Amino acid sequence: MTEYRPGLDGIIATESSISDIDGKKGILSYRGYSIEELAKKSNFEETSYLLLTGELPSNKELKSFSKNINKHRNLSKDFIQLLESLPKGSNPMDVLQLSISALGAFYPINFDSEDLKSGKYDQQYFLDVSATLIGSIGSIVAAWNRIRQNKEYIPSDDSLNYAENFLHMLDDEIKPSNLIKKIMDATLVLHAEHTINASTFTSMVTASTLASPTQVMASAIGSLSGPLHGGANQKVVLMLEQMGSKEKVESWLDERLDSKQVVWGMGHREYSTKDPRANILTDMVKDLFKEQSGKVSPMFETAMALEEACDERLSKKGVYANVDFYSGILYKEMGIPVDLFTTIFATSRISGWLAHWVEQVNNNKIFRPTQNYKGYKARSYKDISSR
Amino acid sequence: MTEYRPGLDGIIATESSISDIDGKKGILSYRGYSIEELAKKSNFEETSYLLLTGELPSNKELKSFSKNINKHRNLSKDFIQLLESLPKGSNPMDVLQLSISALGAFYPINFDSEDLKSGKYDQQYFLDVSATLIGSIGSIVAAWNRIRQNKEYIPSDDSLNYAENFLHMLDDEIKPSNLIKKIMDATLVLHAEHTINASTFTSMVTASTLASPTQVMASAIGSLSGPLHGGANQKVVLMLEQMGSKEKVESWLDERLDSKQVVWGMGHREYSTKDPRANILTDMVKDLFKEQSGKVSPMFETAMALEEACDERLSKKGVYANVDFYSGILYKEMGIPVDLFTTIFATSRISGWLAHWVEQVNNNKIFRPTQNYKGYKARSYKDISSR
Repeated sequence: MTEYRPGLDGIIATESSISDIDGKKGILSYRGYSIEELAKKSNFEETSYLLLTGELPSNKELKSFSKNINKHRNLSKDFIQLLESLPKGSNPMDVLQLSISALGAFYPINFDSEDLKSGKYDQQYFLDVSATLIGSIGSIVAAWNRIRQNKEYIPSDDSLNYAENFLHMLDDEIKPSNLIKKIMDATLVLHAEHTINASTFTSMVTASTLASPTQVMASAIGSLSGPLHGGANQKVVLMLEQMGSKEKVESWLDERLDSKQVVWGMGHREYSTKDPRANILTDMVKDLFKEQSGKVSPMFETAMALEEACDERLSKKGVYANVDFYSGILYKEMGIPVDLFTTIFATSRISGWLAHWVEQVNNNKIFRPTQNYKGYKARSYKDISSR
Repeated sequence: MTEYRPGLDGIIATESSISDIDGKKGILSYRGYSIEELAKKSNFEETSYLLLTGELPSNKELKSFSKNINKHRNLSKDFIQLLESLPKGSNPMDVLQLSISALGAFYPINFDSEDLKSGKYDQQYFLDVSATLIGSIGSIVAAWNRIRQNKEYIPSDDSLNYAENFLHMLDDEIKPSNLIKKIMDATLVLHAEHTINASTFTSMVTASTLASPTQVMASAIGSLSGPLHGGANQKVVLMLEQMGSKEKVESWLDERLDSKQVVWGMGHREYSTKDPRANILTDMVKDLFKEQSGKVSPMFETAMALEEACDERLSKKGVYANVDFYSGILYKEMGIPVDLFTTIFATSRISGWLAHWVEQVNNNKIFRPTQNYKGYKARSYKDISSR
């Protein structure tokens, strides 16, 4: 029995080979590859394959995996009807959790504990299951955004990669630039995995009971939906909206820092240097600023002014803009509704959750920690008439 | 940094005042009250109130809480339509997870982290939220069992308590005896809480991100759905079906023990003496056997013969029939479909999950344990053409 550490802070919950963070050097790697290289040179499908199997795919392997994902990017009529039956004002994360859970009802995935034990489930099995979930999730997010606005469902376009198709299914009238498509893809790569955070840990705990993969992923979505976890990039945008304009940044920030309030999107508990994911997005923000020269929104300008002001005041303390700051303003500038941001985070992170599901069930012990009991000692029941 | 313990075995994950197990003495208590007293003298509504608040309710408090639960026992038309739109062959635990998640879409529960921090949420708030979920869950289980058989939804009957109404909503043509109603209620009391098992731990981890209560409960359902956790009483019945008849018990058991295979429903990792919940059910099984004299099923007789045979061979090793053994055969004898058992477990356990949700968010730190990284050191990306 060891000392109680709230939040299991510093307690080792698993041995894992999926990702690694060096917070002092500002390094995040997936299966040994730095996030910088992957964001620049890889794409979401390939990175998902890497997370799931441990290795980059050959051309043939990637084609087969992508084809399998694409097959599931189109939602069935029944499934679209289910989405249409929901109240239009529903929170997108509620819709996403129930939809992933409903995948298990509409398209049950065979996951049997006896078959697992006997080694029947090989790498191909885990890739196939993962392709089902990865393929579906982005389309559910995009479809829900259409349906809630009473717009028509846009079918998947097989000629597009995952990131491009996601933008297409959100709105097929906008023709995004190559830079915007690349940004979408890069943010999916960047958010796909980040060691044992609360949602990934939730997926591991649920996976350890050998629940079905849809049940596991729906659990993790529940965890990501919490404002202490997945909602930071939405808060960045709301904060910028409150700020109003770039002229107000300096005074707003001074007041905020004086009263020791949070500046959303600044600092990260895992990194004492700049979040490596933010580094990549900084360049993309600058490129987008150039590309859209003269056409960027006032909010984008406010964000740039805030970043500069924070840099002056906070960088000497090791506090820098983090991945949420940039992904928030990039998504906003791309015209994506703010309340979808966390569902896009889930669309990306599902690859990491799935990788941890595979790792967990292949070397499983059910999670059952213990407690310090602080409650009443034995007492006797009293009848309600004498209470 | 401490040593790695798979499954967090022996690691303290929380300080809790909700329930306590003394495995050597065979004691389980909720808020200081022994499970024997509660199962005999209390009922599910009162026990839920106790778990949630720490104290047994006054007459007035119980009436108000029960009334609130009853209000939510009737499902709305929209919600019934949602259930009707699902494939009839869906796994009841998949349906339950998506339904609890969908409650958040149909009837959003206000749970705001700022309001939580400012102390706006008092005990009444947590009781009201809990009443919504407790009221709904049993009705969803019963309604789904009707709908999947193309039978009509049976509205809730306000004159009945929770356990009685659950049986009524399953089938209003059967008029269960008082003993059967009492057994239903007692099993709900017995399964409501059991310290930090995997599903309760899942609810705590998800709760720690300040996710909405429906997201938290849907996560926990995911975890309970796993065959290593919530499915044991279903396996007991399947095992008895395989055995065939009471005459085959002795030879079946000898073979099973010789080949060191699991006998479902025997033994419990938390208790070295008889599971106290099983003690209570043993008596109820005997009473039911008497009441139904001459009318019990062959399976019931097989179960009784198995229990006796196990008792002879295993009790000296401290292995006894556990709560799953008895609840399985009792539900089966009451005519409840086997694939509903885990959803009934969830219907009961939601009170415990909710109690842990209340405890967690009122003294919160987000769960973020750490990992032993065992994967690749830094390596360089290779273009796909050179792989």
